Amino acid sequence: MFNIVLVSPQIPQNTGAIGRLCVNGNLNLHIIKPTIFSLDEKAVRRAGLDYWHKLNPKIWESLDEFLEANSNKFDRFFFATTKSKTPYFEAKFLPGDYLFFGGESTGLPMELMKKKWENAITIPMGKDGRSLNLAISVGIVAYEAIRQNFLNFEGVV
Amino acid sequence: MFNIVLVSPQIPQNTGAIGRLCVNGNLNLHIIKPTIFSLDEKAVRRAGLDYWHKLNPKIWESLDEFLEANSNKFDRFFFATTKSKTPYFEAKFLPGDYLFFGGESTGLPMELMKKKWENAITIPMGKDGRSLNLAISVGIVAYEAIRQNFLNFEGVV
Repeated sequence: MFNIVLVSPQIPQNTGAIGRLCVNGNLNLHIIKPTIFSLDEKAVRRAGLDYWHKLNPKIWESLDEFLEANSNKFDRFFFATTKSKTPYFEAKFLPGDYLFFGGESTGLPMELMKKKWENAITIPMGKDGRSLNLAISVGIVAYEAIRQNFLNFEGVV
Repeated sequence: MFNIVLVSPQIPQNTGAIGRLCVNGNLNLHIIKPTIFSLDEKAVRRAGLDYWHKLNPKIWESLDEFLEANSNKFDRFFFATTKSKTPYFEAKFLPGDYLFFGGESTGLPMELMKKKWENAITIPMGKDGRSLNLAISVGIVAYEAIRQNFLNFEGVV
Protein backbone atom coordinates (compact mmCIF):
# COMPACT_ATOMS: atom_id res chain seq x y z
CA MET A 1 0.00 0.00 0.00
CA PHE A 2 1.57 3.23 -1.19
CA ASN A 3 0.69 6.83 -0.36
CA ILE A 4 -0.05 9.35 -3.10
CA VAL A 5 0.40 12.94 -1.88
CA LEU A 6 -1.05 15.72 -4.04
CA VAL A 7 0.30 19.10 -3.01
CA SER A 8 -2.19 21.83 -3.98
CA PRO A 9 -3.70 20.17 -7.06
CA GLN A 10 -5.43 22.65 -9.38
CA ILE A 11 -7.72 20.74 -11.75
CA PRO A 12 -10.61 18.85 -10.13
CA GLN A 13 -10.99 16.40 -13.03
CA ASN A 14 -7.41 15.25 -12.50
CA THR A 15 -7.92 14.84 -8.77
CA GLY A 16 -11.06 12.83 -9.47
CA ALA A 17 -9.26 10.57 -11.93
CA ILE A 18 -6.43 10.11 -9.44
CA GLY A 19 -8.98 9.17 -6.80
CA ARG A 20 -10.32 6.43 -9.06
CA LEU A 21 -6.74 5.30 -9.72
CA CYS A 22 -6.11 5.10 -5.98
CA VAL A 23 -9.11 2.84 -5.40
CA ASN A 24 -7.95 0.60 -8.23
CA GLY A 25 -4.36 0.50 -7.07
CA ASN A 26 -4.91 0.10 -3.31
CA LEU A 27 -3.31 3.51 -2.83
CA ASN A 28 -3.88 5.96 0.03
CA LEU A 29 -4.64 9.46 -1.22
CA HIS A 30 -3.49 12.55 0.65
CA ILE A 31 -4.57 15.98 -0.59
CA ILE A 32 -2.75 18.99 0.82
CA LYS A 33 -4.52 22.35 0.82
CA PRO A 34 -4.74 25.01 -0.42
CA THR A 35 -6.68 23.80 -3.43
CA ILE A 36 -8.40 26.29 -5.69
CA PHE A 37 -11.46 24.06 -5.92
CA SER A 38 -13.73 22.63 -3.29
CA LEU A 39 -12.98 19.00 -2.52
CA ASP A 40 -16.72 18.39 -2.38
CA GLU A 41 -17.18 19.87 -5.80
CA LYS A 42 -19.26 17.93 -8.25
CA ALA A 43 -16.46 17.80 -10.81
CA VAL A 44 -14.27 15.78 -8.47
CA ARG A 45 -16.98 13.28 -7.78
CA ARG A 46 -18.00 13.09 -11.41
CA ALA A 47 -14.47 12.46 -12.64
CA GLY A 48 -14.04 9.92 -9.84
CA LEU A 49 -17.35 8.33 -10.69
CA ASP A 50 -18.71 6.27 -7.85
CA TYR A 51 -15.25 5.76 -6.39
CA TRP A 52 -14.93 8.89 -4.30
CA HIS A 53 -16.85 7.51 -1.30
CA LYS A 54 -14.69 4.37 -1.24
CA LEU A 55 -11.57 6.45 -1.34
CA ASN A 56 -11.83 8.40 1.89
CA PRO A 57 -8.90 10.70 1.04
CA LYS A 58 -6.96 12.29 3.86
CA ILE A 59 -7.22 16.07 3.60
CA TRP A 60 -4.43 18.18 5.15
CA GLU A 61 -4.87 21.87 5.86
CA SER A 62 -1.29 22.74 4.90
CA LEU A 63 2.01 21.22 3.86
CA ASP A 64 3.41 22.09 7.28
CA GLU A 65 0.65 20.11 8.96
CA PHE A 66 1.47 17.10 6.81
CA LEU A 67 5.20 17.35 7.40
CA GLU A 68 4.83 17.66 11.15
CA ALA A 69 2.59 14.60 11.29
CA ASN A 70 5.01 12.57 9.13
CA SER A 71 8.34 13.92 10.28
CA ASN A 72 9.79 10.45 10.83
CA LYS A 73 9.14 9.33 7.24
CA PHE A 74 11.21 11.77 5.17
CA ASP A 75 13.54 8.98 4.01
CA ARG A 76 10.65 7.36 2.17
CA PHE A 77 9.39 10.51 0.43
CA PHE A 78 9.73 10.55 -3.38
CA PHE A 79 9.17 13.70 -5.41
CA ALA A 80 7.94 13.64 -9.02
CA THR A 81 9.42 16.62 -10.82
CA THR A 82 10.61 17.65 -14.25
CA LYS A 83 13.63 19.21 -12.48
CA SER A 84 15.22 15.82 -11.72
CA LYS A 85 17.26 13.72 -14.14
CA THR A 86 16.65 10.42 -12.31
CA PRO A 87 14.14 8.18 -14.11
CA TYR A 88 11.36 7.13 -11.74
CA PHE A 89 12.04 3.44 -12.41
CA GLU A 90 15.55 3.71 -10.99
CA ALA A 91 14.03 4.34 -7.55
CA LYS A 92 13.59 1.28 -5.34
CA PHE A 93 10.13 1.64 -3.89
CA LEU A 94 9.02 -0.06 -0.70
CA PRO A 95 5.50 -0.58 0.64
CA GLY A 96 4.30 2.48 2.55
CA ASP A 97 6.38 4.93 0.50
CA TYR A 98 5.05 8.46 -0.08
CA LEU A 99 4.90 9.60 -3.71
CA PHE A 100 4.53 13.39 -4.00
CA PHE A 101 3.08 15.29 -6.97
CA GLY A 102 2.67 19.06 -7.28
CA GLY A 103 -0.02 21.22 -8.82
CA GLU A 104 -0.50 21.03 -12.60
CA SER A 105 1.11 24.39 -13.37
CA THR A 106 3.28 24.80 -10.29
CA GLY A 107 4.99 21.49 -9.57
CA LEU A 108 6.33 20.74 -6.11
CA PRO A 109 7.96 23.43 -3.96
CA MET A 110 11.74 23.23 -4.21
CA GLU A 111 12.10 23.72 -0.45
CA LEU A 112 10.10 20.52 0.04
CA MET A 113 12.16 18.52 -2.45
CA LYS A 114 15.40 19.74 -0.92
CA LYS A 115 14.54 17.75 2.20
CA LYS A 116 15.36 14.59 0.23
CA TRP A 117 16.62 15.66 -3.18
CA GLU A 118 18.18 12.26 -3.86
CA ASN A 119 14.60 10.95 -4.03
CA ALA A 120 13.54 13.45 -6.71
CA ILE A 121 12.45 11.44 -9.75
CA THR A 122 11.16 12.20 -13.21
CA ILE A 123 9.29 10.57 -16.07
CA PRO A 124 11.62 10.58 -19.08
CA MET A 125 10.31 12.55 -22.05
CA GLY A 126 11.21 12.63 -25.71
CA LYS A 127 12.82 15.63 -27.35
CA ASP A 128 9.46 17.22 -28.23
CA GLY A 129 7.97 16.57 -24.81
CA ARG A 130 7.36 19.13 -22.12
CA SER A 131 5.07 17.71 -19.50
CA LEU A 132 2.54 14.99 -18.87
CA ASN A 133 -0.99 15.21 -17.57
CA LEU A 134 -0.90 14.97 -13.77
CA ALA A 135 -3.24 11.98 -13.51
CA ILE A 136 -1.27 10.05 -16.14
CA SER A 137 1.96 10.86 -14.29
CA VAL A 138 0.59 9.56 -11.00
CA GLY A 139 -0.53 6.37 -12.75
CA ILE A 140 2.87 5.75 -14.32
CA VAL A 141 4.85 6.22 -11.10
CA ALA A 142 2.35 4.50 -8.79
CA TYR A 143 2.14 1.41 -10.99
CA GLU A 144 5.92 1.19 -11.19
CA ALA A 145 5.93 1.08 -7.37
CA ILE A 146 3.21 -1.60 -7.50
CA ARG A 147 5.13 -3.56 -10.13
CA GLN A 148 8.28 -3.56 -7.99
CA ASN A 149 6.31 -4.83 -4.99
CA PHE A 150 3.73 -6.94 -6.73
CA LEU A 151 3.96 -9.84 -4.27
CA ASN A 152 2.49 -7.42 -1.70
CA PHE A 153 -0.35 -6.29 -3.94
CA GLU A 154 -3.78 -7.48 -2.91
CA GLY A 155 -5.38 -7.44 -6.29
CA VAL A 156 -7.82 -9.52 -8.23
CA VAL A 157 -5.36 -10.67 -10.88
CA MET B 1 9.19 3.87 -30.77
CA PHE B 2 5.96 2.14 -29.91
CA ASN B 3 2.54 2.37 -31.54
CA ILE B 4 -0.55 3.24 -29.52
CA VAL B 5 -3.75 2.11 -31.25
CA LEU B 6 -7.04 3.55 -29.97
CA VAL B 7 -10.01 1.60 -31.31
CA SER B 8 -13.10 3.84 -31.37
CA PRO B 9 -12.25 6.08 -28.41
CA GLN B 10 -15.31 7.87 -26.99
CA ILE B 11 -14.14 10.78 -24.83
CA PRO B 12 -12.24 13.55 -26.64
CA GLN B 13 -10.48 14.78 -23.49
CA ASN B 14 -8.91 11.34 -23.06
CA THR B 15 -7.81 11.22 -26.68
CA GLY B 16 -6.28 14.67 -26.27
CA ALA B 17 -4.41 13.67 -23.12
CA ILE B 18 -3.19 10.51 -24.86
CA GLY B 19 -1.98 12.64 -27.76
CA ARG B 20 0.10 14.72 -25.36
CA LEU B 21 1.40 11.52 -23.78
CA CYS B 22 2.42 10.24 -27.21
CA VAL B 23 4.46 13.36 -27.97
CA ASN B 24 6.18 13.05 -24.61
CA GLY B 25 6.86 9.34 -24.97
CA ASN B 26 7.95 9.24 -28.63
CA LEU B 27 4.89 7.16 -29.39
CA ASN B 28 3.03 6.87 -32.69
CA LEU B 29 -0.71 7.36 -32.27
CA HIS B 30 -3.24 5.50 -34.41
CA ILE B 31 -6.93 6.31 -34.05
CA ILE B 32 -9.40 3.89 -35.58
CA LYS B 33 -12.84 5.16 -36.56
CA PRO B 34 -15.70 5.24 -35.91
CA THR B 35 -15.32 7.83 -33.18
CA ILE B 36 -18.39 9.60 -31.80
CA PHE B 37 -16.55 12.92 -31.81
CA SER B 38 -14.82 14.84 -34.54
CA LEU B 39 -11.06 14.46 -34.47
CA ASP B 40 -10.79 18.15 -35.24
CA GLU B 41 -12.98 19.02 -32.32
CA LYS B 42 -11.78 21.75 -30.02
CA ALA B 43 -11.90 19.51 -26.99
CA VAL B 44 -9.24 17.22 -28.43
CA ARG B 45 -6.94 20.08 -29.20
CA ARG B 46 -7.59 21.75 -25.88
CA ALA B 47 -6.88 18.61 -23.85
CA GLY B 48 -3.81 18.03 -26.00
CA LEU B 49 -2.73 21.63 -25.54
CA ASP B 50 -0.30 22.70 -28.20
CA TYR B 51 0.85 19.15 -28.82
CA TRP B 52 -1.75 18.01 -31.32
CA HIS B 53 0.02 19.51 -34.34
CA LYS B 54 3.29 17.82 -33.39
CA LEU B 55 1.55 14.53 -33.01
CA ASN B 56 0.29 13.95 -36.54
CA PRO B 57 -1.86 10.95 -35.55
CA LYS B 58 -2.66 8.33 -38.16
CA ILE B 59 -6.43 8.12 -38.65
CA TRP B 60 -7.90 4.85 -39.95
CA GLU B 61 -11.39 4.65 -41.41
CA SER B 62 -12.08 1.22 -39.88
CA LEU B 63 -10.49 -1.60 -37.95
CA ASP B 64 -10.53 -3.70 -41.11
CA GLU B 65 -8.52 -1.06 -42.93
CA PHE B 66 -5.94 -1.06 -40.13
CA LEU B 67 -5.70 -4.85 -40.00
CA GLU B 68 -5.29 -5.20 -43.74
CA ALA B 69 -2.50 -2.64 -43.77
CA ASN B 70 -0.71 -4.32 -40.85
CA SER B 71 -1.50 -7.96 -41.51
CA ASN B 72 2.15 -9.01 -41.11
CA LYS B 73 2.44 -7.57 -37.58
CA PHE B 74 -0.16 -9.53 -35.62
CA ASP B 75 2.54 -11.22 -33.55
CA ARG B 76 3.47 -7.86 -32.03
CA PHE B 77 -0.06 -6.75 -31.19
CA PHE B 78 -0.85 -6.39 -27.47
CA PHE B 79 -4.38 -5.88 -26.20
CA ALA B 80 -5.17 -4.04 -22.97
CA THR B 81 -8.31 -5.54 -21.48
CA THR B 82 -9.91 -6.22 -18.12
CA LYS B 83 -10.77 -9.69 -19.49
CA SER B 84 -7.16 -10.92 -19.29
CA LYS B 85 -5.41 -12.19 -16.16
CA THR B 86 -1.90 -11.48 -17.45
CA PRO B 87 -0.30 -8.42 -15.81
CA TYR B 88 0.95 -6.01 -18.47
CA PHE B 89 4.47 -6.05 -17.01
CA GLU B 90 4.82 -9.77 -17.73
CA ALA B 91 4.77 -8.99 -21.44
CA LYS B 92 8.15 -8.56 -23.11
CA PHE B 93 7.78 -5.50 -25.28
CA LEU B 94 9.98 -4.77 -28.26
CA PRO B 95 10.42 -1.52 -30.18
CA GLY B 96 7.72 -1.11 -32.79
CA ASP B 97 5.09 -3.07 -30.85
CA TYR B 98 1.41 -2.14 -31.21
CA LEU B 99 -0.46 -1.50 -27.96
CA PHE B 100 -4.25 -1.59 -28.46
CA PHE B 101 -6.84 0.12 -26.24
CA GLY B 102 -10.61 0.07 -26.69
CA GLY B 103 -13.30 2.68 -26.15
CA GLU B 104 -13.93 3.86 -22.59
CA SER B 105 -17.20 2.00 -22.13
CA THR B 106 -16.75 -0.73 -24.73
CA GLY B 107 -13.22 -2.09 -24.47
CA LEU B 108 -11.66 -3.92 -27.38
CA PRO B 109 -13.68 -6.26 -29.62
CA MET B 110 -13.17 -9.87 -28.57
CA GLU B 111 -12.85 -10.97 -32.20
CA LEU B 112 -9.83 -8.68 -32.49
CA MET B 113 -8.19 -9.97 -29.32
CA LYS B 114 -8.75 -13.58 -30.36
CA LYS B 115 -6.28 -13.04 -33.18
CA LYS B 116 -3.51 -13.04 -30.56
CA TRP B 117 -5.14 -13.79 -27.20
CA GLU B 118 -1.81 -14.77 -25.60
CA ASN B 119 -0.92 -11.06 -25.92
CA ALA B 120 -3.99 -9.88 -24.01
CA ILE B 121 -2.76 -7.99 -20.94
CA THR B 122 -4.34 -6.21 -18.01
CA ILE B 123 -3.49 -3.66 -15.35
CA PRO B 124 -3.90 -5.38 -11.97
CA MET B 125 -6.54 -3.81 -9.75
CA GLY B 126 -7.30 -4.03 -6.07
CA LYS B 127 -10.40 -5.71 -4.72
CA ASP B 128 -12.45 -2.50 -4.84
CA GLY B 129 -11.26 -1.58 -8.32
CA ARG B 130 -13.25 -1.82 -11.49
CA SER B 131 -11.55 0.13 -14.22
CA LEU B 132 -9.01 2.83 -14.85
CA ASN B 133 -9.30 6.01 -16.85
CA LEU B 134 -8.28 5.27 -20.44
CA ALA B 135 -5.53 7.89 -20.62
CA ILE B 136 -3.99 6.71 -17.34
CA SER B 137 -4.11 3.12 -18.61
CA VAL B 138 -2.30 4.04 -21.81
CA GLY B 139 0.33 5.87 -19.77
CA ILE B 140 0.95 2.92 -17.46
CA VAL B 141 1.33 0.34 -20.25
CA ALA B 142 3.24 2.59 -22.65
CA TYR B 143 5.79 3.61 -20.04
CA GLU B 144 6.32 -0.01 -19.03
CA ALA B 145 7.20 -0.69 -22.67
CA ILE B 146 9.52 2.34 -22.63
CA ARG B 147 11.09 1.20 -19.35
CA GLN B 148 11.83 -2.25 -20.76
CA ASN B 149 13.49 -0.71 -23.82
CA PHE B 150 14.95 2.40 -22.29
CA LEU B 151 18.28 2.10 -24.09
CA ASN B 152 16.34 2.75 -27.29
CA PHE B 153 14.48 5.77 -25.93
CA GLU B 154 15.53 9.07 -27.42
CA GLY B 155 14.65 11.23 -24.48
CA VAL B 156 16.04 14.23 -22.74
CA VAL B 157 16.87 12.44 -19.48
